Amino acid sequence: MEFVAAPARLSTADATFEHDFAQRLHWSADTDAAIEQRVADILADVQKRGDAAVLEYTARFDALTAESMIALELTKEELKAAFDSLPAEQREALESAARRVRSYHEAQKKANGESWSYRDEDGTLLGQKVTPLDRVGIYVPGGKAAYPSSVLMNAIPAHVAGVPEIIMVVPTPKGEKNPLVLAAAYVAGVTRAFTIGGAQAVAALAYGTATIPKVDKITGPGNAYVASAKKRVFGIVGIDMIAGPSEILVLADGTTPPDWVAMDLFSQAEHDELAQSILLCPDAAYIDAVQREIDRLLPEMPRKAIIAKSLNDRGALILTRDMEEACAISNRIAPEHLEVSSRDPHRWEPSLKHAGAIFLGAYTSESLGDYCAGPNHVLPTSGTARFSSPLGVYDFQKRSSIIEVSEAGAQVLGKTAAVLAYGEGLQGHARAAEMRLK
Amino acid sequence: MEFVAAPARLSTADATFEHDFAQRLHWSADTDAAIEQRVADILADVQKRGDAAVLEYTARFDALTAESMIALELTKEELKAAFDSLPAEQREALESAARRVRSYHEAQKKANGESWSYRDEDGTLLGQKVTPLDRVGIYVPGGKAAYPSSVLMNAIPAHVAGVPEIIMVVPTPKGEKNPLVLAAAYVAGVTRAFTIGGAQAVAALAYGTATIPKVDKITGPGNAYVASAKKRVFGIVGIDMIAGPSEILVLADGTTPPDWVAMDLFSQAEHDELAQSILLCPDAAYIDAVQREIDRLLPEMPRKAIIAKSLNDRGALILTRDMEEACAISNRIAPEHLEVSSRDPHRWEPSLKHAGAIFLGAYTSESLGDYCAGPNHVLPTSGTARFSSPLGVYDFQKRSSIIEVSEAGAQVLGKTAAVLAYGEGLQGHARAAEMRLK
Repeated sequence: MEFVAAPARLSTADATFEHDFAQRLHWSADTDAAIEQRVADILADVQKRGDAAVLEYTARFDALTAESMIALELTKEELKAAFDSLPAEQREALESAARRVRSYHEAQKKANGESWSYRDEDGTLLGQKVTPLDRVGIYVPGGKAAYPSSVLMNAIPAHVAGVPEIIMVVPTPKGEKNPLVLAAAYVAGVTRAFTIGGAQAVAALAYGTATIPKVDKITGPGNAYVASAKKRVFGIVGIDMIAGPSEILVLADGTTPPDWVAMDLFSQAEHDELAQSILLCPDAAYIDAVQREIDRLLPEMPRKAIIAKSLNDRGALILTRDMEEACAISNRIAPEHLEVSSRDPHRWEPSLKHAGAIFLGAYTSESLGDYCAGPNHVLPTSGTARFSSPLGVYDFQKRSSIIEVSEAGAQVLGKTAAVLAYGEGLQGHARAAEMRLK
Repeated sequence: MEFVAAPARLSTADATFEHDFAQRLHWSADTDAAIEQRVADILADVQKRGDAAVLEYTARFDALTAESMIALELTKEELKAAFDSLPAEQREALESAARRVRSYHEAQKKANGESWSYRDEDGTLLGQKVTPLDRVGIYVPGGKAAYPSSVLMNAIPAHVAGVPEIIMVVPTPKGEKNPLVLAAAYVAGVTRAFTIGGAQAVAALAYGTATIPKVDKITGPGNAYVASAKKRVFGIVGIDMIAGPSEILVLADGTTPPDWVAMDLFSQAEHDELAQSILLCPDAAYIDAVQREIDRLLPEMPRKAIIAKSLNDRGALILTRDMEEACAISNRIAPEHLEVSSRDPHRWEPSLKHAGAIFLGAYTSESLGDYCAGPNHVLPTSGTARFSSPLGVYDFQKRSSIIEVSEAGAQVLGKTAAVLAYGEGLQGHARAAEMRLK
């Protein structure tokens, strides 16, 4: 079968641009009511019956039967054995990626994660104490979409934050284990690992069972059931963001080899058919050249069917008036991945306000960031980069405000607090402040 | 009518302690299905009909009719007039509180909110850029629970973060405006303000209407409809946490005057009947003394009916074996407000892991923190301090990862990325990395 990948050709100068552009961007996160109900039932059941319910759903959905939950635990020895069994090349790649991800997150912790305080003129102490979470759960998808890099990207920031217990769950349909995933758990410092998945695994982590420890936060990607379960347990535990389809936006000035850009668009499109790849460029001839490279390279790609459908349905090559306009449009999209494929990326970077990760210059392909440059590959999608951030050490820490009012400070603050409290009709608050006055 | 406030008397040495304690702590955030449905309808309607729908619901629910949305905007002049009209005492209290809250959040921004980067040995640049959100919405409750302090606590961190546009909404049932709330908006640096509320205001901020600008994040407390609407629009916009009933935990070694502690318990209980006040103390005689002060002070309190019901239904005075055990129980509760009412609070502070805000020493009444000490009074409730933090400057900023791989760096990273990408079956990723190899 032959495939053609023809992303929409748009031009900002076209009268219909706004309409066509909105059509391309549209993606709705509306979830299936049947999934929501199914997930609600599984959560309630695990909350009530614990291990027994998890075993039952694991047998039913993952075709993996076990006598007891403890039989589904992956031991440290098994994780190490998986690592040892890998070809040297994969072992080294895993270790090298882990090392870089760790360095980056250590820098991040230093930049953001320290407690701080100051004293005011009355000797009153004010500050914040930053502490790691006690225990977190990491959901790792199993089956066909098994991503060992996700293990690194979720476990390492938690580890660097100082979380003492990291519990991994990974479904192993029919008991098939992915050695790269197990080896990644070994390299990343996972504390315990269980071969369970789906809404039942999320429920087990949120509520705890006799065997599975209750965690404080659950992170990691999963299918619609996992996403729905995470949303439902939010509040009982913390969760990371719910990811939509992956996206790349390439902002090109026409100086990068067009086959590099074509392949970068492919590397996003190959994830799945809903993934979105967009090129913004002020040079019409360059856009033609990229389309020619798309045509030339597509037949070589093993995942060409997915790539073609993604590019045809959701891709776009957009001609802009200039680079300034391209930057403005990029800010409206707030893409997950933003490549600034320009000879002078630092000229444009300051005007790029919203993006999960910004890849500067022709050598910085998104795929380097996905695996091993160091920054996290868990990034805000669907325009949520307008208000949210990459997964990081800060997601595995929390802050407590610290206040120690001195006797002198209480004399000043007490009066202010009492006036405002009486103004709000809260006399208990006012009296508590006044009692500290001499 | 006479009121008696008798918080449950528990002792950790009792055989039934675990059971009784669990009963006291239990609070479920399960929401009303009818509210959820009602809110879903309002959101859909505002998304479709914009201003017209908001005007209609404002007339229906707030008994406030207007010809056009613009008539519901509070002008800068009106906010200033509200401020100027206040008694000098209130004006000064508001300004003093705002000044302190601002200083604290400036320190917080400095500690956490700066961009950072480093270069690795190959000259590859790695870092994160921290930027403010473009536009945020602040929900301020109206009617009987009008809290000007909430305006300060939500608007000031946004302002310090550098958010250029802060849009406030506040319902004014029957058109009654609270001058303290308007004055607080004036002092705190609110950009625009509208007299709308409920699910329709949340919808207007999330989707935007002809008049109300679409925001990137919505923060601030509200009733069950507001909470439900915020949960539903999460993902389209960011939201802050959904607050449960307010809580205080006092950890006392018996050295603080017992009437101070009794009033601190009242100051939480007076918020509403679901509020929770708990005392943990290893000294039985001191617990008796606090109960005596509760009995003595209660009749003087204008809100005694609420205080009595809250203490009777949800309060507890818990005798512990020692202060160490009291700290351990505090960590299990993860309270919103934690007072360490001890002569030596710094001895206990390091073992207190989970709390929204920690108030050290007898002079630090929670009410000083609520109004003017500086730290934010929007804090995680219902045990969520295990994984979440006070509202802060960081809630009004987001981060973008920055990566600029050097040509030399691409040679090393490209090989690692390709090995891992082939291992995951993502050939486009692998090829994109390999194309950058010489």
